[in-house]
Formats: sequence, structure tokens, C-alpha cells
Amino acid sequence: MIGLRSQTNTYLNINLNKIIENYKIVKKQLRKDCEIAAVIKANAYGLGQKQIVNTLNKHGCYKFCVSNIDEALQVDQELKKALYIMHGINSSEMAEICIRYDFIPMLNHLGQIEVWNRACKKIGKKLKAVIQIDTGMGRFGLSESEIKKVLKNTNLISNIHIDYLMSHMSCAEQAGHPLTSLQLNEFKRYIDLFPKIKATFANSAGIFLGHEFQFDMVRPGCALYGINPISSDNPMQNVVELYGYIVQKRIIEKEQFIGYRAQYKAAKGEKLLIIECGYADGYVRALSNKGICYAEGYFLPVVGIVSMDVVIVNASILPEAIFNEITHIEMLGNHITIDDVAQYANTISYEILTTKFGNRCKRFYIDD
Amino acid sequence: MIGLRSQTNTYLNINLNKIIENYKIVKKQLRKDCEIAAVIKANAYGLGQKQIVNTLNKHGCYKFCVSNIDEALQVDQELKKALYIMHGINSSEMAEICIRYDFIPMLNHLGQIEVWNRACKKIGKKLKAVIQIDTGMGRFGLSESEIKKVLKNTNLISNIHIDYLMSHMSCAEQAGHPLTSLQLNEFKRYIDLFPKIKATFANSAGIFLGHEFQFDMVRPGCALYGINPISSDNPMQNVVELYGYIVQKRIIEKEQFIGYRAQYKAAKGEKLLIIECGYADGYVRALSNKGICYAEGYFLPVVGIVSMDVVIVNASILPEAIFNEITHIEMLGNHITIDDVAQYANTISYEILTTKFGNRCKRFYIDD
Repeated sequence: MIGLRSQTNTYLNINLNKIIENYKIVKKQLRKDCEIAAVIKANAYGLGQKQIVNTLNKHGCYKFCVSNIDEALQVDQELKKALYIMHGINSSEMAEICIRYDFIPMLNHLGQIEVWNRACKKIGKKLKAVIQIDTGMGRFGLSESEIKKVLKNTNLISNIHIDYLMSHMSCAEQAGHPLTSLQLNEFKRYIDLFPKIKATFANSAGIFLGHEFQFDMVRPGCALYGINPISSDNPMQNVVELYGYIVQKRIIEKEQFIGYRAQYKAAKGEKLLIIECGYADGYVRALSNKGICYAEGYFLPVVGIVSMDVVIVNASILPEAIFNEITHIEMLGNHITIDDVAQYANTISYEILTTKFGNRCKRFYIDD
Repeated sequence: MIGLRSQTNTYLNINLNKIIENYKIVKKQLRKDCEIAAVIKANAYGLGQKQIVNTLNKHGCYKFCVSNIDEALQVDQELKKALYIMHGINSSEMAEICIRYDFIPMLNHLGQIEVWNRACKKIGKKLKAVIQIDTGMGRFGLSESEIKKVLKNTNLISNIHIDYLMSHMSCAEQAGHPLTSLQLNEFKRYIDLFPKIKATFANSAGIFLGHEFQFDMVRPGCALYGINPISSDNPMQNVVELYGYIVQKRIIEKEQFIGYRAQYKAAKGEKLLIIECGYADGYVRALSNKGICYAEGYFLPVVGIVSMDVVIVNASILPEAIFNEITHIEMLGNHITIDDVAQYANTISYEILTTKFGNRCKRFYIDD
């Protein structure tokens, strides 16, 4: 099998070259002068923040988004020109950390604006922050009445250098969703209220909706990691390959139940592979009796309930020679994509990647 | 709020005292002279292998089970008298590591028996191994015909010191499941074929089925970590508490959709809390519009789709003073148990614990 890198282990390949290809694909979509702040929260969607930041940085990406201060402190500070704290700051202690490390908080409600304005006043410097406005996501961001308060009483933001106005899209990957244009129009309405301030709106899916959605900076996350950001064919390159190690091969001697709770009955003669990769490895339990793996041109269904440490696949379709010689199967890669696995598990690719995916197995970073 | 340990973070309390209480509860169930090998695979079900091993060790537990050699090498070797490798060994290299570190492999098929027998012969010592027999789980273990081969040709095991005969139960936690007694009878039949060899059969659920299932050693996992091992009221103590940090409070100004894909519509006046804990923190996406959290005597439903880094709960029921002052909510603990969360998410508690649960947040080990 091509790419075999570990004889007796399940292993994960993370292809940093593909991350760069994806970065370039995203870049090609952009209007002139539109900047990129790569989203590297959740340990870069589970793939390794240090490696991803380092790689992107070498290819001209210097702006990054993380969830909170804890994540920001884990980033190599030498490699960033801007590090955005998406969940913002709720205390003067948090503001002081941002000031010390030159982090740029996203301010999501009046309380956060007050904290930053006060902290900036205290040190006598107008420091950068992003102001997030809720345009329909209903999660972070100032409400309409909060924006009105800010506009009425500019003292509230008098010590803040507004780096960007920001909003976040809720349904951008669903083609033609009515909320998308509603959010865009709302956002434009707010932008007009803050003349000469730059704006950032699009996540990965938003970027692919075209120049109108991109404004001055975009915030790609999933697309960099190979997740399909649109509702048609995936324009991104696959980044991850998970090869499951076969711990045991079985040929069923008489009809019997397989796995916990007896949720699959194997027939006499059925060939099974016991793979060292279970839900504790991120091969989620929802894949029980639903996942599909791949080996040497054949697709192999998961049978029975996924265990904590192993999953069982039916390999009856494999020719005998292959069955006897094979040591690993593809659980995710170029034949079984991350989006396929998410679909089998009735979730989204983001959750597959970030849910401890490959945390316990060997990881190999491919970087030519 | 009692137990508040982190002002501006989501945090996880892991109560090592409760682990010991659970260990004692398990011990009380046991027949005389029955030993315990605690299952600490998957980083002790996500709770921290080092801390759990250290704690159990101090209270007289010296035998542990892990999945594979990688996990075994992470255990402090000073603290174990026996460390069982449940997935066994498939190569002479793996056998050599077991010999060097005094690991005891579980041998799950003839190939593994051959590897161990050869390795022992090579060094001229009969070393301990466990032989696993499949009695109905259909996963690891020798089949009936393989057992017959071993019995017919004892040369196959002539260099092996069989520490235990072992089998694993598939439906033990489901009261009265017909496979349970079938497996027990099968196992007894095999035991009779190996006179004077000790036996181990029961996982946590099996232990609570009574002395008949316990034989010479039991292998508790979930029960130690507070997961209910039986189908009636949980006899175990809760070990984990997850307190979600409130990043933002919102009072909805006009009816609007909340979260990705617009899967919840909030009414005017609805009070929402945005909690810094999403599926990348192990608060799985299946909890979207289904999870329930708790604060100060009130139960708060999750609304909308769980995001990667946050979840939103409806806190309209909270009295104003509590809504204004509260900084954290219980996402899991003494009011919302691990088994509750698993039920809301349509999975099992094991998956909740091991799926990156609390990996990103602050962890506090409580040990009086």
C-alpha cells in the first residue's frame, strides 16, 4: 500500500503541501487587496496548530484567528502579524494579556467594548480591536440596539482603534439559503454606519460565494483543511489520510453476532478485519454499521458497533491473496473523504476532524 | 457556584477521591481472592492515565489493562505489577518490547500465540500471556477451531506461561440479554479444557452480575470512571464535572434564528447564554437542540446547532439576578450526569468521556 509508514500501528498522514495548495486555491478566489486571516482554533481543527501556523507562515500568511486567549498563548508569537481572539475579552486581566502579547480581541458585546476601551485608556494608546455585529447568526456580536448605543455615544469606543467591523455567516455553505443575502444586506447597512472602517465577513463558504462577500479580509478555516466549503464538488485538496492497522483477521466459522450489543450477525465464511481505531481515536460511534473503509480497490463496510479502541469491517469481498497480505486499510483519505465519513456518521466534517481524530495514533506530517 | 475554579475559562474537575470510592465499590462486589486489573486504555477513558494509575496504585491496585504497546509504554512502569496488552502482539519486535518491559500480552489468535511462543523459546523462559477466547463477542479471541488446534498440538503453547484464560462480554450491561448466559456457558466449557488455569471474564457490567461471572480476575473500566455499569440506578460515584464559561449573554431583541444552519428560532425577550464549549471540546454535535445544562436549580436547554467552540443555551427560566451574576453553568456533573449527556446525544457515556472531553479546557484533579 502506498504511503505505508507504520508497520504495526494505525497512523495519520497530514499533508502540509495540500494545506498550502488549499491556501492558494482560497487566495485565487479573492478580490484584489483582500487579506486572509487563517482560522487555527481548536488546534487547527485538530491537525496541529504549530505545524499549520509554521507552514502557512512560510507561504505568506501572517494573520490568524483563535477562539480564546489560551489558544493564542500557544501560538509562536514570532510568526504572527495579527492574532485575533474571536471570543473576545471579559475582564481587565484578559485585556492586559492581549496588550502584553499584542493580540487583537474581537469585541462581541458592549461589556467587551467597555473592557477594551478602559484598558486602552489606562495605557494611553488606541489599540486595535475588531467589533463583531450579529447579522443573523444569533451567537456572538452586538445587537442592533447595542450598535445604536455605540453610534450615539462614541465615547464608548473613543480609545479603540477599530481594525475591522466583522460579522459571521450562519448558512453560507448551503447554496441559495435565504439567510445568506439577508445577512449580507444587514452587514452592508452596518458598514455604512461606520465609514472608512474595514470589514470582514466571509468564512470558507462565504469566500466561494464571490467578491461581494469578501470585503477587506476573509477568515478561511475548513477549506484550508480540505473540507468542502460549497454544496457542489469539493474544490479543495484532501489533507488527511488515516490508515487503520489490522490487529486480527477472522473467518467466521459459524453464524454469530459481532461486537457490543450484538448489532450485526456475521454469516459462516464471512471475512472480518479487526482494525485498531475506535471512537476514542475519533472514529465516532455513529459510524457503527454505517462507516465504509477502503483497501486495494475494494470498499469495506463497518459491521457492528464501533468499540472504544477498534472497529470491525467486512472484508469478504477481498480476494484471498489481498486478505492474507494486507496490514492496513484506508479509513479516510483519497477514496473515503472526510466529507464521506461525516456523511456516514450523520454529522459534519468539522466534527470528524476535531473530535480527537487521530490523537492516539502515530502522526506523520508530509512536507516536501 | 460551588467549586468555581477558573474565572474566565471552561474547566473540568476530575475527582480522584471518587475514583477510589468507585474502586472500593467494585471491590465489595467481588468474590474472595478475585483480583482487579483496572482498564486504563484510551488515556484512562480520557481522564488522564498518569493521574488515574497513580491514584489507584496508592490504594492497592497494581494490575492494569491497556490497548496496545504504545499505551503501555506511557504507563509509569514502577507502579505496575502486571500490565496487560489487550490487542496482543503481531510481530517479534512487539514481543521483544513486551519482554523488555515485562508486559503481558493477550493473545487473540493463533498468529499471536505463535509470535509469543517463539519469542519465549528464543530467550528460554516461559513468560506470562493471557489467551483470549471468543465466546460470542466476535471481535478478539481464538475461535473454536483455533482452540481445538491448540489443545491437539500443545507444542503451540509449550513456551507460554498461561496467566489467564480470558473472554469478553458483549451485552453484559443489558439486563437479561440472552447472549450473556450463552457466553458464560461457552467460557466455562473452555475453562474445563484448560485445567488449573486461572480465568478472567467480567468487565464492569459483568462484575455486577455476581460472583459466578468474576472468576479469578475482573477488568473494570467504565465503573471506575463513574459510568453506570448496570441497567438500573447507577451504583457508582460521579467523577467528572464540566463547568462551561459564559462568554456572552444575550437578550433577543426581535425574533431571530440562532446558530449555524438556522436550526432554532428565538423569540423576542428570550435570554441566551453563549458557552465556551463546543464539539471540539467533546460537547458533541449530536447535542444540538437536545443537550440540557444546569445552573442554580434550573435546567437550561441547548438551542441550535452546537458549534466547534461554543454552545448556546436558553436561560430564559433564570431569575434576573442569577442571569446577571452567573459566570459558569454545569454542563456535566452532579445534576447532569455523564449518562444523561450520553442519552441526550444518543450514544454511550464511554464515547462522551473519551471523545476529547475537556481536552482543551482547564483540568483540575481533586485529591484530598
